[in-house]
Amino acid sequence: MVIVSASTLQVSIEICATLAFALSGLIAGARKKLDPFGVFVVTGVAAFGGGTLRDVLLDRRPFFWVEQAHWLWLMLIMCLLAMLFMRSRHILLTERAILIPDALGLGLYTALGTQIALGLNMPVIVCALMGVMTAVFGGVLRDIFCNEIPKAFNDHQPYAVIAFSGSLVVVALNALNLPPWLCVSISASLISIFRIAAIYLNWRLPSWNIEA
Amino acid sequence: MVIVSASTLQVSIEICATLAFALSGLIAGARKKLDPFGVFVVTGVAAFGGGTLRDVLLDRRPFFWVEQAHWLWLMLIMCLLAMLFMRSRHILLTERAILIPDALGLGLYTALGTQIALGLNMPVIVCALMGVMTAVFGGVLRDIFCNEIPKAFNDHQPYAVIAFSGSLVVVALNALNLPPWLCVSISASLISIFRIAAIYLNWRLPSWNIEA
Amino acid sequence: MVIVSASTLQVSIEICATLAFALSGLIAGARKKLDPFGVFVVTGVAAFGGGTLRDVLLDRRPFFWVEQAHWLWLMLIMCLLAMLFMRSRHILLTERAILIPDALGLGLYTALGTQIALGLNMPVIVCALMGVMTAVFGGVLRDIFCNEIPKAFNDHQPYAVIAFSGSLVVVALNALNLPPWLCVSISASLISIFRIAAIYLNWRLPSWNIEA
Repeated sequence: MVIVSASTLQVSIEICATLAFALSGLIAGARKKLDPFGVFVVTGVAAFGGGTLRDVLLDRRPFFWVEQAHWLWLMLIMCLLAMLFMRSRHILLTERAILIPDALGLGLYTALGTQIALGLNMPVIVCALMGVMTAVFGGVLRDIFCNEIPKAFNDHQPYAVIAFSGSLVVVALNALNLPPWLCVSISASLISIFRIAAIYLNWRLPSWNIEA
Repeated sequence: MVIVSASTLQVSIEICATLAFALSGLIAGARKKLDPFGVFVVTGVAAFGGGTLRDVLLDRRPFFWVEQAHWLWLMLIMCLLAMLFMRSRHILLTERAILIPDALGLGLYTALGTQIALGLNMPVIVCALMGVMTAVFGGVLRDIFCNEIPKAFNDHQPYAVIAFSGSLVVVALNALNLPPWLCVSISASLISIFRIAAIYLNWRLPSWNIEA
Repeated sequence: MVIVSASTLQVSIEICATLAFALSGLIAGARKKLDPFGVFVVTGVAAFGGGTLRDVLLDRRPFFWVEQAHWLWLMLIMCLLAMLFMRSRHILLTERAILIPDALGLGLYTALGTQIALGLNMPVIVCALMGVMTAVFGGVLRDIFCNEIPKAFNDHQPYAVIAFSGSLVVVALNALNLPPWLCVSISASLISIFRIAAIYLNWRLPSWNIEA
């Protein structure tokens, strides 16, 4: 994923964000009382599903989790420890604790995914979709594997919508010929800030004006 | 997708059919009260999911929606307008209005998908499956994303079955050395006619003779 | 799939195992009262979904069901015959009859899938995951298509867990420089034996210690 010279800050954010995505999968698995294999799959899909789907569509190899396979071991151990030591009260604590790293991940992964697609000369909207997919589709696949409608599709929180707007910022900054690392940094920060604002100010997306 | 010299007629059918597929996704999203991102994903998947899955399996790039990215913008605008202006009574009207374009799409996409696979020297049944997948799997993925059993799997309407039979016609006509555009035209017409007949004559597929 | 010189024994096991996987899909489709197209898709996905997903991720072509397309015809005929002649009492009989071939398939497909990934120089845990995916993800996709939580995720039977352990045995044996056919044979046998033991001794995986 290193397309901008990976600063220590970026690497730290990546680690926190991937763990936050993974923990969202772990919690979903715990809520559904999945067995160890199910928990591991849902955790792994939540962490890496978005980037993997993007790479399959863009025909890029190797995947992040093939190049950095120690992440998979880490996830395996995390799942085993969670099944041994996690209790009901930890779930709510964890959910609150991952809100900020998740917002950082939304920013960073969207910006990186968009930049990758731009590097492959994809059209603007495809770049934006690849950015959003990188950050959001792990959660979508996690929910499909748990037999739920994806939260990102119906919780009416501005999550993917903020990512989409931010990915257009990546494209715009690239059009100004700024260096890639700067485009990614600015857009990632903007997305994360707006996402955090959306959480604390409780922004809501408009709903359908119909009876289903 | 242009493997036969694309006549104006074919292009017109393609546009109507893609819109019909997209509208089926939009309606499914509205019924499930998805938020704007969910509606856009389900609409896009209904329109392009089948062809994309076919291309991933056949390892073909670029995807239709990468080459013709203006379709994605169109879909985005369509979703936004629908969320603003669609009311409950429009849903039933739309469902009735898209029956015929959907049948035309079933014919055209099945025939084109089969012809593409034939061009890659796939075995007969793989060609037929690729044809059916092109036309039907957008709807299947749409329903999976909405957390429903795919309608194509259990509504007992002859939809995929007609497409499958028609794709075998594509193969047969190619075996007679007819030019591709003629194979596609004849088969697409046959599929559409039978599908429309199935709707108006209310044909049903046989059911299981078991208690589940 | 022939990476070890395919003995008659291996070919016989492959045929029995693929049929067992396919029958599990057919039964799932019957239980959900799917129509003929749905039954065929779910049957095909149960039989070939795992290997196909592995090959998409590893970017390998052609797929098994493209090279051996007669399997698809066989499955089509099997589905049609089942819809004509299957009765409720056959379902339980079939479920019992496929337990052993399914366990043989779990062993063989896991070992073969792991060996394939090893041949592509994948990291250890990726090889193990590819092995498990080959054997288990057909069933996972079958259940997702039927709108259920995958049985492999929440039935607390040691199925994927045994496959995972066995795939690490494949890796270990390769590290000892044993010939591939021997690595696959030993590990496949071990997995199948443990799986059969798990069935008859009613082994269970540990559960979450939480209230969801």
